[in-house]
This record gives sequence, structure tokens and C-alpha cells, in this order.
Amino acid sequence: MLDIGSRAKAAARPLAIATTEQKNRALHSMAQAIVDSTELILAANAIDVENGKASGLTGSFMDRLTLDASRVAAIAQGIREVAALKDPVGEVIAAWDRPNGLHIERVRTPLGVIGVIYESRPNVTADAGALCLKAGNAVILRGGSDSAHSSRAIHACLATGLRSASLPEDAIQLVPVTDRAAVGAMLTGLGGAIDVIVPRGGKSLVARVQSEARVPVFAHLEGLCHVYVDRSADLEMARKIVLNAKMRRTGVCGAAETLLVDRAAAGTHLAPILETLAQAGCELRASPEVRALFPAATPATEEDWRTEYLDAVIAVTFVDGVSGAIEHIAQYSSNHTEAIIAEDPKAVERFFNEVDSAILLHNASTQFADGGEFGMGAEIGIATGKMHARGPVGVEQLTSFKYRVHGTGQVRP
Amino acid sequence: MLDIGSRAKAAARPLAIATTEQKNRALHSMAQAIVDSTELILAANAIDVENGKASGLTGSFMDRLTLDASRVAAIAQGIREVAALKDPVGEVIAAWDRPNGLHIERVRTPLGVIGVIYESRPNVTADAGALCLKAGNAVILRGGSDSAHSSRAIHACLATGLRSASLPEDAIQLVPVTDRAAVGAMLTGLGGAIDVIVPRGGKSLVARVQSEARVPVFAHLEGLCHVYVDRSADLEMARKIVLNAKMRRTGVCGAAETLLVDRAAAGTHLAPILETLAQAGCELRASPEVRALFPAATPATEEDWRTEYLDAVIAVTFVDGVSGAIEHIAQYSSNHTEAIIAEDPKAVERFFNEVDSAILLHNASTQFADGGEFGMGAEIGIATGKMHARGPVGVEQLTSFKYRVHGTGQVRP
Repeated sequence: MLDIGSRAKAAARPLAIATTEQKNRALHSMAQAIVDSTELILAANAIDVENGKASGLTGSFMDRLTLDASRVAAIAQGIREVAALKDPVGEVIAAWDRPNGLHIERVRTPLGVIGVIYESRPNVTADAGALCLKAGNAVILRGGSDSAHSSRAIHACLATGLRSASLPEDAIQLVPVTDRAAVGAMLTGLGGAIDVIVPRGGKSLVARVQSEARVPVFAHLEGLCHVYVDRSADLEMARKIVLNAKMRRTGVCGAAETLLVDRAAAGTHLAPILETLAQAGCELRASPEVRALFPAATPATEEDWRTEYLDAVIAVTFVDGVSGAIEHIAQYSSNHTEAIIAEDPKAVERFFNEVDSAILLHNASTQFADGGEFGMGAEIGIATGKMHARGPVGVEQLTSFKYRVHGTGQVRP
Repeated sequence: MLDIGSRAKAAARPLAIATTEQKNRALHSMAQAIVDSTELILAANAIDVENGKASGLTGSFMDRLTLDASRVAAIAQGIREVAALKDPVGEVIAAWDRPNGLHIERVRTPLGVIGVIYESRPNVTADAGALCLKAGNAVILRGGSDSAHSSRAIHACLATGLRSASLPEDAIQLVPVTDRAAVGAMLTGLGGAIDVIVPRGGKSLVARVQSEARVPVFAHLEGLCHVYVDRSADLEMARKIVLNAKMRRTGVCGAAETLLVDRAAAGTHLAPILETLAQAGCELRASPEVRALFPAATPATEEDWRTEYLDAVIAVTFVDGVSGAIEHIAQYSSNHTEAIIAEDPKAVERFFNEVDSAILLHNASTQFADGGEFGMGAEIGIATGKMHARGPVGVEQLTSFKYRVHGTGQVRP
């Protein structure tokens, strides 16, 4: 594994100075190789699917694992979309002059080497490889054993793309799944070779990475997203947004899990919103006060305020206006995404100032928590840490920076 | 210690929404309290100095520890300078609109709670406390036992300032030095309370923090800074800059430690530069080829290329032009600061593109590696990591950000 680390580090140097044209050429060639290899990829995937069935994998897991021709085409298209993104490397983020004539520039640079640890979604091999490459980073990919054949077949196409653009093949390395100690070694940074770890997968994977990693991690453990409906909310808008935030897709990290209703809106907003949710098939778990007004809801326990259901279930309680919402969120939120539905600009301002989550929305659905929806192109994930990659992690967030200082002979007095 | 962590976390919330005026009022009141308490501070410091002498502390250590009236005045002045800095919190760093009408803003927020672990420089108590406060962060200070009395006296003045501006006193807490387990507990984050650790002190402290911390660390282990003199360098400028980079102050992290001379400039630039250094009292440790031309230098060993002398000593070798300089720096640098002296813009461009250090300078001294010299005001240190605080760490680098998304009822299709 240390060898993989040092090869990645060596590859990161030419990659950091590769031109945009060269990186895009590699990406387009990868996409073409994937299209051309559709049959090979599907044959490899069939082995994984067969093995998965034999070991009794469940429905949604099998769904993520299984490829068909249109999914392979979508993987290729995803790589082409990364090629179309603006190259962040070399961008001058800030520039200023000093009284002594020094001209200082802050310039984006690649992060270096990124380790991606993921479960059995074979498309992550291509998505993560392409995003890291576009930002000039070498990447070490460690996929789940259940998708090993599929990942290897896709990785071979990425290597073809690198070769065709004269970029080092070590820029995108796939760790053999037979190496059981690989994840642990990656989490310690492979002797200083890995700059950032990105986990892609379920909560137990992310929790392990966050607790064991000795290098920075770009991730979120869970998306316990809140929607707060203020007394000033437009009722129709609130119904529409809450329904979308909870029910559009219940399994995504931006799905709402808790609904906070302003106590002052108990008589006006509560019942219509809960009826809308119930009619859409959503289970309601409510505080005693809410149940007094809406008896169809089942009782919520303390655990419900802490639960990311990822399912058609929502916890509902009253709060004392925006202050109460801020308090509830401070106590229970995972700092991922929260929304306020309100027409009162003062309530919105307080919510935006005082809630400390990566993404705050006003009069819009929490399901917009997504790099593509933010206009940042593809994302490698959403981060809830305080470091520079907070919120959607796209190509720009996969960079660091350096200072370039231009002088004319200045020495320091 | 966990109690200190949760009190800091609680204090961070009102601090994050404190107005600029309120924070500045606290800072000015702190400065005034320090001036008013000069005698108390000096009396406390006298105890530390007495204890230090008794335990046989060395010259430079005693110098950093010892305060007098003018040093106390400088501490107060330093706090007033922090008050004069622009408040970074709330600044909209980026803003854009989406086709669906969503308006997205990226806004600076405080990091939260910062842990500062430092050795026996009592002024760090005030500097770090003031900088963290200005950026809206709570701070947990853990100073060295040798300056315990001085730090306590200064900390009392900071508390006075917080009170007078109605800010929570827990915003700046000083950990008792009697708590021996405190550093270890801080490095694990105090149960999720600490967002970032900043070590201030010698290499062994920083090395311990970097190896044990389970939260992000803003620091540099060493400043093994290089100056490369290209064949195209103006000789007079090169002499002046190399002299300043090495000898202005030899104990700072931005001092040059290795001189790389373009082999093509062996006959023109080498001797005059080395003579200038030797005349200024600098010891020269040189490669065999350099010694062949300048026999007064002593032989360098492999270890010299890896040594941060922090003294009037420099290692000297030839390299094959800018490519050779880039290779040498890639092998030996600590990624802190490097300079190129050259008139050839192509050489400068390659150096700036391919050297992966936090600060790169062209035709200027490495001793400019400093937040004040960058125009960023006071700094809490210089970081060599790849995360958002790279290079000088000033108030702006002590912040994070969040996204604020303004909608008009948008739901995601």
C-alpha cells in the first residue's frame, strides 16, 4: 500500500501542471473507452451481480450494484460533463499590492492525492476518478468488494484515457479488494501520501472513516435536515415545499427528517401541511401538542428528533417561533441543510445568521442540497466539516491554493 | 476539561452573532485593562521569571518569557490593531443565481471553538485571544507552565474586556496548567467541542500536536525555506535578497536555510553571494562542487539539506537551472516558503507553477512570509497544510462559511 501512496504522490506532480486541454482529452477518451467497453463492463458486472445474489444482498443494494447499457452510457456522459466544467487550477482567487510594491496573488492549486473509499456503487469509480483528475489531483480508489469486477472494468477505461492524453496511469489507482488492510492504511494517510479522504457510502462507513482517519475527511455523517414553518409562511408554498423536501426522494441526504412548526401557526398551517404529507403516504411522528391537534399522528419519542429516517417518515413538533427553531436545530441537527418557510424578512435573517449548518434555504426545498443544483457541476459528496470544503464538494472544493508574490528586489527591514 | 469544552461551545453561539462594534468594544477594553494592570502583570511575570531562573531556563527562552513595561504596552497595542482589522464574519464571499431563480450566497462564519496550545510566551495569551474573538470564535488557551502567572494576569484583563462588552467570559478560557491531561484532551477535541487546534511553539510541540490531534491543525512543523538564484538573476539584487533572507533574523520560520545556485551561474553569482554571507558572519555548508569554487565553505552532509538551522548557517549547492531547483525543493522542502531570484519570466513561471509550497516569492526575501507583511494584519501562525488556512493564518483564515439560499417557493423536480 505504501507503494501505491508513493506512486500516487509521484503522479500528482505532472498532474498538477497538466493543461486543461490535456485533462479534458483524457476525460473524453475515458468516456469513449467506457462506451466502447460496454459489453465488457456488463459482463464484469454480471459476475458481481451473480455473487451478490449468491450472498443474499438486499434489493436497494442490488439496485445500486446492477448496471445496464443505459447506466453505462450515463457513466460516460457524467465524465463528459466533468470535462465541460471550468478548470479550477491556476485561477487567481485574490490579488493585492503592498505599499512596498510586492504584488501578492492567491492561486488555486490541486490538493494533491485524494483517497476515495466507497461501497458497492460501481459508478463512483468513474465519477470520483474524473472529478479528482479535473482538479489536477491523483486519486487512490478503494471500492467495495461486491462491485470489484465492475470497478476493475471501469478503471481499465480510465487508464486508457490517461494513456491517450500522456498522463501517468498512477494518477488513478484502484486498490485490489483482496488487500484487507488497505482501508486502515489509507486512513492513516499512507505515510503522508494522502492529503484528503472522501468516504462514499452508508453511515457506518462514514463513521469509521471519521473516527479513524488521521488526514482531513470531506464527508457528512448524516443529513438530519429540518424544515421550519414560520407564522409568516405562505401556506400553499409551505405545503408544496414540505412535501417536496420530505417525499421527492426519501433516501437522499437532503431529505427533510424533522418538521418544526411555529406554535403561532398551530391553528392555520399545521393541519393542511400534515394532511398533505399523510395523503402522500408519509408516516407522522408527533409531539403530544401536535397530536392534540392532529390525532392521526403517532407519538414521537426523544429518539425521533435524532433520527435520519431516509424513509417516508417525518418527526413533527411545535417551536416558539424562529428562536425555538434555532434552539431545536442547535440541539439535534447534523449541520447539513435546514430550510425556513417565511415571508417575514426578520425571521429569515435570524435563521440565516444563527443556524450553523452548511446549507440554509429560505422558501425552497432542502432537496436542493446538491452540487448540480448549486450549479457547481458534479460533486463528490457533501461535507459538514468547518474546513474549506463545506456543503457540496465539486471540482473547486477539491483544490487548495498557494501564494505567489512578485517583487522587484524587496528585502524586509 | 469536558466542561471547559461545553462552556466554550455554548459561548461560541452568542459570539458568532456578536456585532463588529461589540467585539471591538471588548478588544479596546481588554487593551485598556492591560495598560491599567501593567504593575500586576509585571509582578506576576516576576514570579515566572524567578521560577524560570531557579529551574535553569536558557537565554532565549528567558528572553521570550520576560516582560517589561514596554512589552506590556506592545501587547495592548497588538490588541488595538486586531480591533482595527476588518471583521470577516458575514462577508459574502461569492453569490450567484440559478436558472430556477434560487439566489445562492457563500457567507463567512466563525469556525466555532479554537484550541490554542502554546509554550511560554505570555503575549500569545493576548494575541490568540484577540484574533479568535475578532473572527467570532470562542477559544480555549493552554499556555506553558513556565509563564502560568503572567498568562493568568493577562487573561484576567481579557475577561474584563469581555464583561464590559456583555460578551460571555467563557469566550476566552485559560486552562489551568495544573491540569496535566489537558493537552491530550484538547487534541482529541474535547468531545467534539474543538473545531481547530493551533499550536504555537517549538518543533517538538508542533510535532506532538500534528501526530496526536484528532481535529484539524493549523500549523507548520518547520520552515525549511529555499532561495534559488537563477542564471538570469540580477547579481546585486540576489546578494541583497539572500543576505536578508538568511540573516535579517535567523530564528524566524521564514529565514532561508538552503541556497540553490543555478550551475550556469557558478562563475558569476556564486562567489559574490557567498562572500556577502560570510562577511555577515554566516557559516556556509556546501556541496563538493561549490567548495571547489569556494573552499572557505565547510562540507555539507545529506543531513544539511534537511536541516532548519534557525541560526547563522546556510546550506549551499548547485542545481541544474530551475528544473533542478524544483526537484531539490520537492525532495527537501517543508512546503512553507521558497524564493526565486531571476529576470527570466519563463523560469519564474515554471517555479511558481511547479513548486508546491504555501508561499512562493519572486525577487523578494523569504522573510516576508508573515501575515503583517502580507497586509493581513496580525496572524496566529503560518500553516503548511492543504486546508483552507494555508500560509499566514489571520482573522480571515479563522473563519469557515455557510451557504444561504434564497428562494421563492422552489421545489426540486
